[in-house]
This record gives sequence, C-alpha cells and structure tokens, in this order.
Amino acid sequence: MPSLPATLPVHGDGAADEALQMSHRLIQVGIALSSETDLGRLLELIVAQAKELTHCDGGSIFIREGEELRFFVVSRNEDLRDLRMPLSPSSIAGYVVLTGESLNLADVYDLSPDLPYAFNRQVDQQTGYRTRSLLTVPMRDPSGQVMGALQLLNRLQPQRPTRLDPSQVAEWSQPFSALEASVAESLASQAAVAYQNVQLREELKSAHFETIFCLSLAAEYRDQDTSLHLKRMSNYSRIIAKHLGLSSREQELIFYASPMHDVGKIGIPDAILLKPGRFTPEERLIMNRHPEIGYEILSKSDSELMKKSATIALTHHEKFDGSGYPRGLKGEQIPLEGRIVALADVFDALASRRPYKEAWDLTDIFRLVQESTGTHFDPQVVAAFDRGRSEILEIYHRYQEHS
Amino acid sequence: MPSLPATLPVHGDGAADEALQMSHRLIQVGIALSSETDLGRLLELIVAQAKELTHCDGGSIFIREGEELRFFVVSRNEDLRDLRMPLSPSSIAGYVVLTGESLNLADVYDLSPDLPYAFNRQVDQQTGYRTRSLLTVPMRDPSGQVMGALQLLNRLQPQRPTRLDPSQVAEWSQPFSALEASVAESLASQAAVAYQNVQLREELKSAHFETIFCLSLAAEYRDQDTSLHLKRMSNYSRIIAKHLGLSSREQELIFYASPMHDVGKIGIPDAILLKPGRFTPEERLIMNRHPEIGYEILSKSDSELMKKSATIALTHHEKFDGSGYPRGLKGEQIPLEGRIVALADVFDALASRRPYKEAWDLTDIFRLVQESTGTHFDPQVVAAFDRGRSEILEIYHRYQEHS
Repeated sequence: MPSLPATLPVHGDGAADEALQMSHRLIQVGIALSSETDLGRLLELIVAQAKELTHCDGGSIFIREGEELRFFVVSRNEDLRDLRMPLSPSSIAGYVVLTGESLNLADVYDLSPDLPYAFNRQVDQQTGYRTRSLLTVPMRDPSGQVMGALQLLNRLQPQRPTRLDPSQVAEWSQPFSALEASVAESLASQAAVAYQNVQLREELKSAHFETIFCLSLAAEYRDQDTSLHLKRMSNYSRIIAKHLGLSSREQELIFYASPMHDVGKIGIPDAILLKPGRFTPEERLIMNRHPEIGYEILSKSDSELMKKSATIALTHHEKFDGSGYPRGLKGEQIPLEGRIVALADVFDALASRRPYKEAWDLTDIFRLVQESTGTHFDPQVVAAFDRGRSEILEIYHRYQEHS
Repeated sequence: MPSLPATLPVHGDGAADEALQMSHRLIQVGIALSSETDLGRLLELIVAQAKELTHCDGGSIFIREGEELRFFVVSRNEDLRDLRMPLSPSSIAGYVVLTGESLNLADVYDLSPDLPYAFNRQVDQQTGYRTRSLLTVPMRDPSGQVMGALQLLNRLQPQRPTRLDPSQVAEWSQPFSALEASVAESLASQAAVAYQNVQLREELKSAHFETIFCLSLAAEYRDQDTSLHLKRMSNYSRIIAKHLGLSSREQELIFYASPMHDVGKIGIPDAILLKPGRFTPEERLIMNRHPEIGYEILSKSDSELMKKSATIALTHHEKFDGSGYPRGLKGEQIPLEGRIVALADVFDALASRRPYKEAWDLTDIFRLVQESTGTHFDPQVVAAFDRGRSEILEIYHRYQEHS
C-alpha cells in the first residue's frame, strides 16, 4: 500500500484517538484498494489490511455468485485458494450474506446448538489449526446490497510471542472488540466497491478481447485459418513479448492486437484467396498486398491498440534480412511487434495441419527456427522464444485442433 | 451519495469528535466516489462533498494534462464548465500542482506581490462575485504523483443567512480551518484515484468501440458500405432505443452491437456480392444468407455484447408482418434489437447515395417509414423514431458523406 500521510489532527483522548487513528488508516486503505486493478492482489490486500487493523491471524472473503458463495482464503504462508460452497444460512458466512448481520463470535467451538448457523470444523481438523474468535461482516455495495462477506479469524492478544505455530494460535486468541467490528464493517464496504470495480474492468476487457477475436475470425472466414490458430498465435506472441522483458501493458497490447494480423485478407479476391493450387507470380503479388490492406483498414483508428494492430498487420511478413514483404524492411527497421508476430505466426502455421500439408514435427520446427535466425527471424526474438519454450508448448497442447 | 451508517463509535471530546465525524464522512465519501462511473457526475460529486465537508460556497477541479490544466468549475446553479489554461506557477492552481503544496489563503485580494502566484480577478469581474478565502489542495494519485488540484472558495460563516446573493457571499466568507484543509487533502486523494478509475474505464470503452468499428468496417471492405454509414446507423439505433425507454446499459449495448450487423457479408462470394446488376433468384438466395453467416460468426462468443450483435445480425432483415428473411419471423417474435436496427439500417440506406441510386429526400423517407409501419417496421419502433426525430436529424447532418 502506498503510504499517505495521516493528515487529520489527533487529540489527547485515548479511545477517541484510537478510533480516529483507525479512521485515518481506513481512508488510506480505501484509496489503496481503489487503485488496485488485479483481482487476486486486491483480495490479498483486503485481508492483509484487515489483519493489520484488527490484529487477527487470517481471513477469507466470500463473494455471492447466484446460489453459491465463492470464497478466497488468504492464509499465513499459502497462496490464495479459490473455493465454492452453496449459499445457505446454516454456514456462518452464508448467514451473514443472507441476513446482512455481522457476527462477532468469541469461540466458534462453543456456539449454542439453537443458532441457525454452525461452525464447520472440517478445515481445522484437516490442518490441525484451531479457530476460536471469528468476526464475519457483510460486504455491502454502495446501493446497500450484500454482495459478500469478510471473515476474520483469531484476534490475537497483544502480548503473544512474535512467532506462533498454527497449533498455538488458539491459546492467544481473544474476542474482537466492538471498534474492530466497526472497522471491519467499514473496510468491507470499501472492499465491496473496489471488488466491483475490478470485476467491471475485467468484464470490459474480456468483452473487448472477445470482440477482437470474433471479428478477426470473421475476417478470416474465407481463409482456412481457425479460431484455435488465432488463440495460439496471440498467446505465443505474448509469451515472446514477456521473455523479451516488455512491460505487462505492452504484452497485453501485443496479445490483443496480434489476432488482427491477417484482416487485410478481406481485400483479396476470392479467385486468388480460395485458389487450391499454386499462385502465378501475378496472383502472388496480389496476395502479398494483404499486409497493406490490413494496415489501411486498421490504421483508421486513433486507439493505441488499433495502431499496434495496424503495425503488426503491415509488418508481420517482413524478414530480418530484408527479404520479406511488402517493404523489404531489415533488422530493427521492422517494428518489434512485427518481428514477434512473424515468428509466432510461422511457428503456428508449421505446427498445424492445413488442407494442403501435414503438421510438422516440433523438433523439425525448432530446428527450422534456429536455422532461420538472423535471416527470417530476429535473433533476440528467437532467444525470447527459446526462454519461453515451456509456456509455448503448454499453449500448443492446450489449444490443439481436433483431428 | 448512498447513506451508509457511521459505524465507528463517537466519544465526548469536542475537537476529537469533530475530527472523527469528518473521518467517518470521508470513508463514506470515498466509497461513493469509487462507485461513480460517469466523469461529469464524479466531478460534481467531489465538489458537492467538498462543499458539505468544508462549508464553502463553490469549487473547481484542475486536472493536469501535459502542459495544460484542464479545469471544471462547479458553481451554484450552473452546469459544469470545462475550461483549459496553461500550467504555470503564476496561477494558484498551477502553483499547487507544480509544487504539491496546499495553499490556504484567507483573502485572495490581499496577497503579497512577492508571492510567485497571484489571484486572477477576471472571472470575479465578469460575474460580480467576490472570491475571498480560497483553499487549494493537490490531488495526489496513490503513487504520490500530483495529477491535479481541488480548489474551494469562500468558506462561509455558520451564522450566515440561508440564502445568499453572489454579491453578498464575500462578507460572510471566513478562512478555512486547519481541519478543513486536512479534510480537503484527504478528499482530494480519494478524488484522484476515483478520477483515474473513471478515466481508465472510459479509455477501455472507447478502445473497445474503436475496435468494433474498425473491424466491422473491415468486414464490409468488399461492399459499398462506408464508415459513415456504420456511425450513423449505430447512432440512430441508440436514439430509437433511448426513446423506447430502454435502460442506458441496453442503449449502449445496441450502440456497440449494431455496427456488426452485416459482418456475415464476409461469407458471400465475390461473384455475387460485387455483381453490378440485378441478382438472379438463386443469387438472391445466397445473398440472403448473410444474416445467418453473421450469426454463426458472432454467436461463437459468450459475451453479452457479442450475443446481442449475433441477434442483430440474424434478425435485422426480418419484417414486422413476417415477410422478411431468413426466418420469416413476425411481430414480437423478432427480438426488439432486430426491429430497431431494421429501421435504422433502412433509413440510412435510403438517405444515402449508392453507386446504383441517388439519396432520397428526407420527406419521402419519412413518408415511406410511415407507410411501412406495421408491415416492414414495428409501430412502437417507428413511434420512438418519431419522438427522436430531431436527434436523428442531428446525426444525419453531422455524419454526411462528402459528395
């Protein structure tokens, strides 16, 4: 979290001062949550802040998804775990989500059997951990709807040892105070809006990618290229970009822009594009106009993404030694994104079966790529491709055509 | 702003209580700002909250854009005004943005001439208003960068009359307190992150629209349709949706989805699509397959937008009386979005010159639309089109082809 100065003045009264300090912290936490754009990091940040503000040992976030609760457990040294359970008032989190009431429980092993909810000891039994105090507060969105719950476990006594074994935690557990419950409620409301914002942004991005994908595929409707080709080559391009050390923004742009590389084939007449045999030299010249047609189509837009896609469309058939088309650019005259997509596209074309050829063996393709380094392909791009080979193979296997 | 309960406890100490109340309010304000998705409303909300928290008469927001300050004035009874000025330390806002220092000035007409900044009395002179106390605080984003400033004017005395004439404001103006300056600083940081979030979301949306637009145009590359046709008909469709009372979300979906209505023409062979004369009945049958081809292409995606675009592609040639194609759907069997785009598309086709026909007169088109009500077009859609006629004509004139 970026540290902002606590700007409000503080007075002498102990209890009021503590509440005021908490409020200052909450304002800063709200800003930090709002600026987080990654869902996993946001969830971790929420629990980390809740732990600091309420001195507890761990926490989970429950998100309502229809009739289910999706929950994320952030535990001491483990990665985030993403699980699901049915939404029911018989679980503590379910009860809080369905009623909108907070539950501040001193010892979950000592709950009256008359209560509508009960603590599920299963996880404790599996892990040897002992949950005692448990605070569960609703996450309300700004319209007042309960969209989930924040659950914090084992408020730790101040005089506890600095390092605690999981088995020792329960003996240092104490109930959460009313102030801590209030703080957790405020934090949960801030978390709700931050979560919704990140989710909305992810939906916008995924809708955008679906559009690119669908319309790029449309552009290749008359050609033999398949949806899986576009999926693979855009992933390959991103992997190469990553191993070249490009920023995550740049990696994402290349991932989004690369499926549009062959849009210019729209401008090639049926008689040539769909010709089964070899091209005559005149037909080849017309076919080789597709990079320029694609550039003409895509460069009409001012958006950064479309400019990148226009560049890729124009330059993905250039070769590093200057023997490519349409301009015969050489080396670093070819924009980096064009050099990346050139390799991703050729690699995938060789690895795929087409009506007129079989798929090549991977060993043969890797050998060809090596042999074409410095002639067809940029040596730096090939080196990045090699560094990313295991990820490339993962994509290769994940998106295989059914034969 | 949604009202959230102030959940933190309050104690007896006056000054600490005031600070604590302010903090509670700031937490709630932060949540409200984070959930606002419209830039104009966000700016108004920031100033409205600042006015309430600091009891001032009005405010402006300055956003740094390169070497300029873009500023938004929210005044008493007027709409938001969006202005620009060069970024320079000689203005008060410019000084705050460039140095990151807050300026809490008791009377801007009484500033030492030795100061690097001065108050510009021009606006006061034009409006007969008198600015006295002026608080200007930096808007820092979470990384600490100053991205703008929040400026509040004329902190009003509590014993002022409930209604004040602009000319009376200055006599009831008093300096802002240190607490108010702190509150404004916190609020400005919350505003900074909310502003960046809204801006980022608008960038994502506009990049998405550019992509749809560009790739839909690509799909029509072989056809005579132009970029202006797509712009007009997507705007017409949105206007009709609005006057049918559809939600703004639904209006936006239709606006984004409608440019893709003819994507299926990609699947029509050159020999038919590009034929200059009349179609034979067999050719007409093939040509009329473009809605189904479009549906096939666009329905591959799960996104709400692409599903909507697939529906539009499939049904925009159906007619209300069942005489359309491909399925001969009738009345409300045709999805509403298909009925909307049917009218928008035909209206624009008639109003445009094509290689084989002149543009029709608007009067003739409006007459034809009336005559086709209940046969080709849905009467409700035509009624909405009529209610939106002035907006339709505005778009018609704005996006004219150069002839």
